[in-house]
Amino acid sequence: MVTCSDLEESVLERIAPAPDEIAHINEVARKIIALVEASGIAGGMIVGSVARNTWVRGDRDLDIFMLFDPALDRNELEVQGLSLARKIAAGCGATYREKYAEHPYINANIDGLDVDLVPCYRVSAATEIQSAVDRTPFHTRYIRERIIPHVSDVLLLKQFAKAGGVYGSDQMTEGFSGYLCELLVLHYGGFHPLLESAAAWRPGTLIDIEDHRQKDFSDPLVVIDPVDPKRNVSASVSVARMFEFVELARGYLENPSPEFFFAPVPGVFSQAELKAELDMRGTHLYAITFDTPPYIEDIVVPQLRRSMDAVRSLLERHDFVVNRADCAMLPERCMLVFELLFEDLPSVRRHIGPPVWNRENAAKFAAKYEDLRHIELFAGPYIEDGKYIVEVKRPFTSVSDLLRSHQVLDVGLGKHVKQVMEDYWELSRDEECWSEGFAPFLSQFVRYESPVMRIKRLVKGIEDRSE
Amino acid sequence: MVTCSDLEESVLERIAPAPDEIAHINEVARKIIALVEASGIAGGMIVGSVARNTWVRGDRDLDIFMLFDPALDRNELEVQGLSLARKIAAGCGATYREKYAEHPYINANIDGLDVDLVPCYRVSAATEIQSAVDRTPFHTRYIRERIIPHVSDVLLLKQFAKAGGVYGSDQMTEGFSGYLCELLVLHYGGFHPLLESAAAWRPGTLIDIEDHRQKDFSDPLVVIDPVDPKRNVSASVSVARMFEFVELARGYLENPSPEFFFAPVPGVFSQAELKAELDMRGTHLYAITFDTPPYIEDIVVPQLRRSMDAVRSLLERHDFVVNRADCAMLPERCMLVFELLFEDLPSVRRHIGPPVWNRENAAKFAAKYEDLRHIELFAGPYIEDGKYIVEVKRPFTSVSDLLRSHQVLDVGLGKHVKQVMEDYWELSRDEECWSEGFAPFLSQFVRYESPVMRIKRLVKGIEDRSE
Repeated sequence: MVTCSDLEESVLERIAPAPDEIAHINEVARKIIALVEASGIAGGMIVGSVARNTWVRGDRDLDIFMLFDPALDRNELEVQGLSLARKIAAGCGATYREKYAEHPYINANIDGLDVDLVPCYRVSAATEIQSAVDRTPFHTRYIRERIIPHVSDVLLLKQFAKAGGVYGSDQMTEGFSGYLCELLVLHYGGFHPLLESAAAWRPGTLIDIEDHRQKDFSDPLVVIDPVDPKRNVSASVSVARMFEFVELARGYLENPSPEFFFAPVPGVFSQAELKAELDMRGTHLYAITFDTPPYIEDIVVPQLRRSMDAVRSLLERHDFVVNRADCAMLPERCMLVFELLFEDLPSVRRHIGPPVWNRENAAKFAAKYEDLRHIELFAGPYIEDGKYIVEVKRPFTSVSDLLRSHQVLDVGLGKHVKQVMEDYWELSRDEECWSEGFAPFLSQFVRYESPVMRIKRLVKGIEDRSE
Repeated sequence: MVTCSDLEESVLERIAPAPDEIAHINEVARKIIALVEASGIAGGMIVGSVARNTWVRGDRDLDIFMLFDPALDRNELEVQGLSLARKIAAGCGATYREKYAEHPYINANIDGLDVDLVPCYRVSAATEIQSAVDRTPFHTRYIRERIIPHVSDVLLLKQFAKAGGVYGSDQMTEGFSGYLCELLVLHYGGFHPLLESAAAWRPGTLIDIEDHRQKDFSDPLVVIDPVDPKRNVSASVSVARMFEFVELARGYLENPSPEFFFAPVPGVFSQAELKAELDMRGTHLYAITFDTPPYIEDIVVPQLRRSMDAVRSLLERHDFVVNRADCAMLPERCMLVFELLFEDLPSVRRHIGPPVWNRENAAKFAAKYEDLRHIELFAGPYIEDGKYIVEVKRPFTSVSDLLRSHQVLDVGLGKHVKQVMEDYWELSRDEECWSEGFAPFLSQFVRYESPVMRIKRLVKGIEDRSE
């Protein structure tokens, strides 16, 4: 760490793991590693932030990898891996459950820690991995060997990114993973140098620590994995999250204040407050809700986004103007929400036909409308910019008719989303969209602002938007 | 004329000038020419359709040009020209008035004919003209020498174009001039061959009878003037009129019927009918009316169009969706009319800022919104596709507030339109837009269809839209 302000020192005092926390987590880890090694069929390895000394106080996550012989076939790995993991969890007297990423693992609560027991192959190089988890031990080794002088920087960065809402490479956040934070600190040489560089980032920023890139990437931020020249560690980072981080960096450099590390959770609208806010905006909310498909977040969330985009396009094809749209996934229910500038449109709708000089198509088009009586054909065909235009009866003059119609199922919904919606979906309007569970999401949606704006308002003592 | 159907023969019987009409018009022309020649200062020449034998029965227009020595200076030409014209008109016992095109001339009613007495220079070649009128004698000579075998074709074409609403090179019509009709018949060799070729016209069609083009044109239809290689005779023809003619040609070839030559005038809405029609459409009409600026149609009409486009852009900048717009010029009043899909919008308005990576502009933009309280800043700044977005208070939430505001005067109105509007303009809505004078225009506007559609409906006996 190059420099560390008093503010940052005081932040570190709050976020660095406490000595008893370190002792406890290491003790649990040692115990589990010993059990893995004792099995004689796999080696044990601590990975993740605990192994790298970059975990933030209060994190209770411990990742233990069980490294098997790569000669084992995939199925055998899963069988033996899960069996060993179950035995260990049971031996520790833990409650546990199976989880599935690229392949299955065990998630157990052991001595108050949230422990993942993950089987993988012990490969000799990161480029020879058989599945994504095999890469993790290489990440851990790479970071461990280099991070010691920068541990405080990483802790500050992680806390900064969490408070700014850009931490996490999950599909909903589309932000910065822990590993990415570590690499950024290594590359720039500290928290401050990183912020100063990030303040000037542009789309297409490329960081290649080992200078070994073997592939082109079109992501807005490209950080080549030091252990895999064909992988972009920041592939998960969206343009929005990248530039929210840029804004946070600029904001903090300009006016370093504790709110950049500890931003209070924004207030949540009551149903009446949501109604008042919508009345003031003059817009209308329409929410489609349905049961959460029985799959993990990383599978469901991209489908929610795709479904949201498809429904938005449907609305726009019917000339309804969407101000904003978003989606949310709760354990039981999912929501696609759309803010509309208006709810109703007139009966008349313009339909643009072929250019008049395309004789064959023009003839077909004109013939279709020649014999229509007035009620179906309001005007036209007439010629505008060389193309035929007709004004015909609009199929849906109200948003709610459209969103209640079968049309919604015929757009490009995500596969599992479509499956649950075919059973049942609900349409709600304005404050009816509100429920206890979705209230935080809807509050954030309606008063939407970038993280740095929220922090700056807090710093300046300007009213919270929810009040 | 290659072939002429019974239908066309019967049309010609109705539109060819009657023998007594021909005798009368020639007698008046001879009398005036004699008076011009008798002056000793100018030569007389009949120009226009009378000179070319291509006038349609009932046309009462006679154009007499007075050809002066090109050595005369421009001012002297106008003084001597007008003086001679006045003397002739007075000598014929006619009522007359001065008119202005590129330069002044006299319009007189002589023996029941509408006579234009136009001074011009007698130049030796059309390429040496000093003003546009000097070209006319060359047009007349060119056509006279060639048109005799095709007189019937020209008459049919003129009548066909008139009935189809595409005849006239004035700014409001943007259609086909008489000279253009004559050239098209000459080029294709008759009315039928022209229609067959026109049915396959595409934008950029080029006709160069003398094969002497010296300039490129970007107009949809280019007909090089046989007497001036740098002039496009069909520069006045808009894409819409060109392809309405194409449609008429296709329609007539497919089903030749008398309605293509004699289409009854479409019905006109009463105020109550206009209201009923708008109720059915569900849209709203807004009309801006003002005094007609004291200039000729060819000056005012382009200004009306420009003003209409500017107001339309104003509406669209404020997110009001315009279905269609048009303008009309009556002797006393002008109208710009807009059909809106809705009249009101919510308070919230998206405003798109600079890309976040443009650090200087981004900082300025964000600073502007940092201290705004909730009532002026509904949401944002947030980042979408790398750009800042704010949601701010909409300046005009209703169409009528916007169109009553001073903003209307600050868009790119035509000069003379702006002058009269600075004194006074009126905004009317829906059936209030109706007046006896504007009723035909508004009826045509609301039930807008291309000429061939109207004719096909007439042929098939389908209800008139106005009923």
